[in-house]
Amino acid sequence: MVVETPEPNLALEEQPLSNIVEVLKAFRARSLDLMKDGRFKYLMIFKNVGAQAGASQRHAHSQIIALPVIPLALKEKLNPCREYFVEKDRNLYEDILRNEIKEEERMVYENAGYGVMCPFASRFPFEVVLMPKQQRADFHACKDHDLVLLADALKHVLMAYRQGLNVPSYNLVLHTAPIRHGKQTRWHTLDFDFRWHIEILPRMSGIAGFEFGTGFHINPVLPEEAARFLREVNAGVNE
Amino acid sequence: MVVETPEPNLALEEQPLSNIVEVLKAFRARSLDLMKDGRFKYLMIFKNVGAQAGASQRHAHSQIIALPVIPLALKEKLNPCREYFVEKDRNLYEDILRNEIKEEERMVYENAGYGVMCPFASRFPFEVVLMPKQQRADFHACKDHDLVLLADALKHVLMAYRQGLNVPSYNLVLHTAPIRHGKQTRWHTLDFDFRWHIEILPRMSGIAGFEFGTGFHINPVLPEEAARFLREVNAGVNE
Repeated sequence: MVVETPEPNLALEEQPLSNIVEVLKAFRARSLDLMKDGRFKYLMIFKNVGAQAGASQRHAHSQIIALPVIPLALKEKLNPCREYFVEKDRNLYEDILRNEIKEEERMVYENAGYGVMCPFASRFPFEVVLMPKQQRADFHACKDHDLVLLADALKHVLMAYRQGLNVPSYNLVLHTAPIRHGKQTRWHTLDFDFRWHIEILPRMSGIAGFEFGTGFHINPVLPEEAARFLREVNAGVNE
Repeated sequence: MVVETPEPNLALEEQPLSNIVEVLKAFRARSLDLMKDGRFKYLMIFKNVGAQAGASQRHAHSQIIALPVIPLALKEKLNPCREYFVEKDRNLYEDILRNEIKEEERMVYENAGYGVMCPFASRFPFEVVLMPKQQRADFHACKDHDLVLLADALKHVLMAYRQGLNVPSYNLVLHTAPIRHGKQTRWHTLDFDFRWHIEILPRMSGIAGFEFGTGFHINPVLPEEAARFLREVNAGVNE
């Protein structure tokens, strides 16, 4: 558990940028410490906000869970990245980010270090993914300067949610590479083919029988419309 | 949409057995009709009850959605069934049901045609799976007599939820074999290796960041305890 502020009613995005940077530094420091334990293969950093997103308490907080296995949901990201790299000799995330920046219509925010976009195949209305422009598989390898830019990007998108979507419930999940413990494992290519990133899933529509039975998600909002809306909210906030 | 009753405040399990049989016959009739359309590869029958399970209206109803593709979530069931059959020359569902009936502790209810159990690796507290004792890949092939026994099993487990869990929200999903349109497809082995079944997922605990990020589910209730509780509620109801 990472407590993000001593204030009982202050959300992460309402805090000064320097405080958000401190939260991100806590993620990094805890990650580096947990990685010393050879039993752990994966560190899951996540944040549940609001009752609809499964939050069990209101005070602004994030969670870090260390796992002795690499989750299947992560392997379903890692394996296609490797296949893409083997086939094209290029990084999948880099290609997606470059393409989205060029096409513009699904971009929500961009600064010197990060791009934030509504994914082409968004599962939820106003879902966003945030990824670094620099190739890096491990979140814990971020420098202080990277974390300042990350805090800026997070503050922008979470503030757009707060202002534009009336303080929605959401889940934030940080996907980073599995811990390699300096060993040559089957994941030794991750430094080239995988990139850490953050997914933020607003929980305004439910997960119901159809989603459980099929794995498909019904999303009534086009990612292009969601991105335009969040851009316009951001512009209004920053005027 | 299958409207289950003209009564505005009556749940499926509160209806007389004969009405529940009529609902199941409607599932079958609609399935047989939709299967005439060569575009469809899969029919998804499901039921969302309560706001936490994503129900958008209160009146007792079920839904049938016809899909032009076989959902990935279903393939993740079909493929292991085939692998199991290839390796052991036995049906996976038949082996699970036989084992659960023998071990007893995860069984919730049993009649001449169906077994209801809390799965060994339950994702949600009080999750149950209901499967026919007779090998059959397709729900739509059920005879009238099968549907009477199915209605009996459904009424028992849903009444145990209602009485024991204080009318919980839940999703019910019927997993049946893909439509083969009489053709020799790669799914021609399903009649031997796959069995239709129903999953019922009470939604008392949320799906949050950890579940999205890992695909793992945190379930604080052992399936053996859940099954015992539901058995005892059923016994109380039927005294």
